[in-house]
Amino acid sequence: MKYHLFIPLFFLVLVSSAQSDADYIKKIYKNALTDGHSYEWLDYLSNEIGGRLSGSLNAEYAVEYTKFELEKLGLDRVWLQPVMVPKWVRGNPEFGYIETAPGKTISVNICALGGSVSTPAQGVKAEVIEVNGIQELKALDSNLVKGKIVFFNRPMQADLIHTFEAYGGCVDQRYNGAEEAGKLGAVATIVRSMNLRLDDLPHTGAMSYGKTPVSKRISSSAISTNDAEKLSGMLKIDPSIKLFIKQNCRQLKDVLSYNVIGEIKGSEFPNEIITVGGHLDSWDLGDGSHDDGAGCVQSMDVLRLLQNSGIKPKRTIRVVLFMNEENGLRGGKAYAKEASLKEENHIFALESDSGGFTPRGFTFDGPDYKVDQIFEWKPLFEPYLIHYFKKGGSGADIGPLKKSTNVLAGLRPDSQRYFDHHHAANDTFDAVNKRELELGAATMTSLVYLIDKYGFKSIVPSTKLKD
Amino acid sequence: MKYHLFIPLFFLVLVSSAQSDADYIKKIYKNALTDGHSYEWLDYLSNEIGGRLSGSLNAEYAVEYTKFELEKLGLDRVWLQPVMVPKWVRGNPEFGYIETAPGKTISVNICALGGSVSTPAQGVKAEVIEVNGIQELKALDSNLVKGKIVFFNRPMQADLIHTFEAYGGCVDQRYNGAEEAGKLGAVATIVRSMNLRLDDLPHTGAMSYGKTPVSKRISSSAISTNDAEKLSGMLKIDPSIKLFIKQNCRQLKDVLSYNVIGEIKGSEFPNEIITVGGHLDSWDLGDGSHDDGAGCVQSMDVLRLLQNSGIKPKRTIRVVLFMNEENGLRGGKAYAKEASLKEENHIFALESDSGGFTPRGFTFDGPDYKVDQIFEWKPLFEPYLIHYFKKGGSGADIGPLKKSTNVLAGLRPDSQRYFDHHHAANDTFDAVNKRELELGAATMTSLVYLIDKYGFKSIVPSTKLKD
Repeated sequence: MKYHLFIPLFFLVLVSSAQSDADYIKKIYKNALTDGHSYEWLDYLSNEIGGRLSGSLNAEYAVEYTKFELEKLGLDRVWLQPVMVPKWVRGNPEFGYIETAPGKTISVNICALGGSVSTPAQGVKAEVIEVNGIQELKALDSNLVKGKIVFFNRPMQADLIHTFEAYGGCVDQRYNGAEEAGKLGAVATIVRSMNLRLDDLPHTGAMSYGKTPVSKRISSSAISTNDAEKLSGMLKIDPSIKLFIKQNCRQLKDVLSYNVIGEIKGSEFPNEIITVGGHLDSWDLGDGSHDDGAGCVQSMDVLRLLQNSGIKPKRTIRVVLFMNEENGLRGGKAYAKEASLKEENHIFALESDSGGFTPRGFTFDGPDYKVDQIFEWKPLFEPYLIHYFKKGGSGADIGPLKKSTNVLAGLRPDSQRYFDHHHAANDTFDAVNKRELELGAATMTSLVYLIDKYGFKSIVPSTKLKD
Repeated sequence: MKYHLFIPLFFLVLVSSAQSDADYIKKIYKNALTDGHSYEWLDYLSNEIGGRLSGSLNAEYAVEYTKFELEKLGLDRVWLQPVMVPKWVRGNPEFGYIETAPGKTISVNICALGGSVSTPAQGVKAEVIEVNGIQELKALDSNLVKGKIVFFNRPMQADLIHTFEAYGGCVDQRYNGAEEAGKLGAVATIVRSMNLRLDDLPHTGAMSYGKTPVSKRISSSAISTNDAEKLSGMLKIDPSIKLFIKQNCRQLKDVLSYNVIGEIKGSEFPNEIITVGGHLDSWDLGDGSHDDGAGCVQSMDVLRLLQNSGIKPKRTIRVVLFMNEENGLRGGKAYAKEASLKEENHIFALESDSGGFTPRGFTFDGPDYKVDQIFEWKPLFEPYLIHYFKKGGSGADIGPLKKSTNVLAGLRPDSQRYFDHHHAANDTFDAVNKRELELGAATMTSLVYLIDKYGFKSIVPSTKLKD
């Protein structure tokens, strides 16, 4: 008798709770697609402000603008978290050409990599040695490299379905190439743009000199994929052709900037903090719409969509627009440092920093039993074509929040077009589709809704319980 | 002992077979992404030929070009299947404006719907009655409609995740609007473009007058979503404003055209036919890259990718580029008719006609036990982020092949951006991403590979077998 009574009640509760979650999530998606604000915010950020390199005036405008917009949402608190950021400036447009014979030149599309030193004022002209990566460079006799420009030309691997894997397999050339080439006496480096497509746009991005003393640093540039193909082809015909590069970028002193933060205080567990965010800084060639204006405006809309869907969070929900992800991660580090000093309990953080494309799912970094709990919610996302729930990776800015006990996550949008735009002049507002952006915001909001509602089990369930 | 021997052997076979399918599919995706031909073919079809309205010179160029390209593949047979198609011509660019007072006009972006009659030579100018659909129109007193232009303005429903559902919920206004408005004495109709986005492009598409005699037919046009909003807003302020429309499209006599067909003869079961296709005709405002140049070149590449991946089909694999899907479906009907006359055994057909975007999966139309067999292959597709296998719907061109015993399927790409381009001037090559297109071709090829290899069980398995 007891058994018979227990089962139906248990099922009723389960069904009614599931129903209500599905209803809330439906409401969230509907609000995002019919009354979302992310696209409008992105329009302003991209078209009225533009590229937001750390330390630039535009970055400060973006801080002011997003703070102002968050204040309009009627959150419990909106504030700026000060953070010192590096200030690198591109200077005049870069200029490069291939010289096939004295006076015979062909222009190539190049740009300085972020953090690079300038070339000598008159530019640098030298023969070119092409390598397919750092490994191949290191195996070379330094006589072959000395006095030359090292050309890193290993392309992104096209048959990888996850384009971020292809990026991961190439980006060491951009990040560490100049350091390694400098050790062998090269006079400059040029790197094939991290782009799966053949086009004319050079893609910038961070690079590092490691421990190379300032006096030994050589300039580092990116070349468009079309021009990389051209240069490579011409080198095969005549290895004695020369490349000319001129750029006058430089690194200035660190300047004060800010993370922009807004929060809704939790009604039941205000000390359990859920962070959702993207990074407000961007590279300077485009307007940073996909990287990462999209993630910022989606994160802002998470709080708005919770409000408009009639959800009163039990836990504290914070949106953080991180400063300086691209060339320093100072914002992410400062946020985690203060969280640690204040002994804040960050149970979950979600970052959107993979473009404003159709969302496909999430990746998670956290203890198995907590991630498994999230995986149980998968069916709630299937009506919205969100199928991809995997362990592994979250986001750069939230990375410093990592503890053995909390869960970090990254939104995973469709990645096929991302590297067509990444860090290039065509990372612009027109490349963002309104619905795709809004679906991302709705997907993030739905996950935050569930985590806020249920929290995490505090102990590992026994296998008995799992049965 | 027998038990112990049996189980490991059974598992070995299962594992080795699964391994080999996974390997072949991996090879197919790799070939598509590193050596696919679909993008190159589409470039020619879109940029060298352009829009391919049935009966147009461009459509005939497209027939010649694709036949030529299929012949280069070394298939067992390539041929043209004659089919008479309707020939509708747009004539001069359409012209429309809102007149707020005599001599005070505001231009609007309009286009004739395919199949529409022209306006009178001097155009038509009349007051406008806005309705949110055919139901609302039918409920009106004919005195309110007589002598006016009926403006169908129900937008696509933005909160539907599957945008084709939103299209399905609106397109009756375009297809049947003029017939219904004509019955009530309207002088013309104008329909809000089937577009989820607000922009300035009118979207054409097929319409029908049903049984309306020629003398009673009224012109039918589409208006851009921005101008639909403008017109609607102005009507609210002043219902007496007038709309002027001028178009001189017309329907000519049917002309001869062709389906383009190529096949690889099956080595074991040549009489079991697997068809894969898209439609070669397109609307004329853009170059028909997504609708349906993409589906054509993907289907062509299916045969090439099978060949290049070392797969020798057991069954006959046919690519069919159907003529006249957009305004008559004559190609699809002719293909099915000949199949029926020849008593061909079409076990499976797959159409790609939803744009060249990132593939998400398939829909299937067929007996449950056969569709269930396909569903068992889902795990093979998951590494390629293909998660969506559902019953319901396939493709218009292959629809006439339907029997109770065979399976028809449609490739389902991401649909969020499709209606931004559908039947409009921006359905152009630059809106197609190479990788997304190639992933679609690989996904189709992988399914065709599996169906070719395993065929279908010929009887319904008993529930016992299913356990």
